[in-house]
Amino acid sequence: MKNVKIPEPTIKRLPLYYQILSNLKEKGIAIVSSSEISNLCGVKASQFRKDVSYFGEFGIQGLGYRVSHLMEKISAIMYLNSEHTIALVGVGRLGEAFARYPGIKKWGFKIKYLFDKSPHRVGREINGIKIEHIENMPKPLFVSIGVITVPSSAAQGVADKLVDSGVKAILNFTSISLKVPEDVVVRNVDLTHELAILTYFLERRKELGY
Amino acid sequence: MKNVKIPEPTIKRLPLYYQILSNLKEKGIAIVSSSEISNLCGVKASQFRKDVSYFGEFGIQGLGYRVSHLMEKISAIMYLNSEHTIALVGVGRLGEAFARYPGIKKWGFKIKYLFDKSPHRVGREINGIKIEHIENMPKPLFVSIGVITVPSSAAQGVADKLVDSGVKAILNFTSISLKVPEDVVVRNVDLTHELAILTYFLERRKELGY
Repeated sequence: MKNVKIPEPTIKRLPLYYQILSNLKEKGIAIVSSSEISNLCGVKASQFRKDVSYFGEFGIQGLGYRVSHLMEKISAIMYLNSEHTIALVGVGRLGEAFARYPGIKKWGFKIKYLFDKSPHRVGREINGIKIEHIENMPKPLFVSIGVITVPSSAAQGVADKLVDSGVKAILNFTSISLKVPEDVVVRNVDLTHELAILTYFLERRKELGY
Repeated sequence: MKNVKIPEPTIKRLPLYYQILSNLKEKGIAIVSSSEISNLCGVKASQFRKDVSYFGEFGIQGLGYRVSHLMEKISAIMYLNSEHTIALVGVGRLGEAFARYPGIKKWGFKIKYLFDKSPHRVGREINGIKIEHIENMPKPLFVSIGVITVPSSAAQGVADKLVDSGVKAILNFTSISLKVPEDVVVRNVDLTHELAILTYFLERRKELGY
């Protein structure tokens, strides 16, 4: 896939398409039209067709797209066809919810390590993975992704530790802007940002008289 | 703000700017340059300047942007200057983590209702809010936002109930594409999608030899 140049907004929609296709496949549906996909995900049919055309998918004239084939294509582009391992730091409510999230395994991700520093948590097991003390983090860790679900005040220290252990991708659930070396990718998930964006669309619609 | 037309990708970056400005303000910083903002959030300085120019902010020549002033502007555009209430359904680990998330109050949101159907949870209190049985949901609810943190299999039923009680905005943490009337806004947060997007950027960088 090295030579395929796909715009970033398209990349960000591919997991949604993948999930919808996966739901359709589970229902035994083999062919789907762009307008059906559009109905299921709220992205315009024309946008969907454009998105998948970037990697040479144009569907079958008058019929639609082959569900399995399109899933394989997206899976290859998103590198979902190999296993990716995760080290999660901070096994509080959010961390434990993440660790137990059924989708993780389904998408080919695997939690390899859980870390915390609370004596109430260290030693406990979640889905067969023992919670280790963060001070015992192996170096290197040999995982693809570090997930940070600690309180914001501890986030930078944890990020430093993960980077020090060779982690090149971090999913950050705290409200801190992490400082990391240039070769480390960070993605922030902030629940309040999602609320704020939702509020904007809600209020905007009211103003425009929807 | 009715007449200001701001592109959607800009809107989606505004909460991040707002948060960074808020962190700067707490540190007593009054003026910030676009390159400092860029360093803190990973968005290009030119993109930041373009984003804020949509609502008439151009900074002070050679100095930068006034932190408080910019926060007020963003707050007004995002409708964050009034209180928005939330009804959350599904007080499992993720739901409870959300309900206890300190950022919610800080951003002017307020949890008004918590619903569940498990007898182990109904009647318990979180931050002074009693968990009610979902069958006792008032109609109308008079809240701005419904948050769905139930298992995927129950999500559509909960969405129907919320819509039926007059909710016009839903934050959906399940992997289901909710079917809602046209006047209801839905925003999906799927943890696996975030992992997939992160993996893409990680692997892509490796391939390109970063």
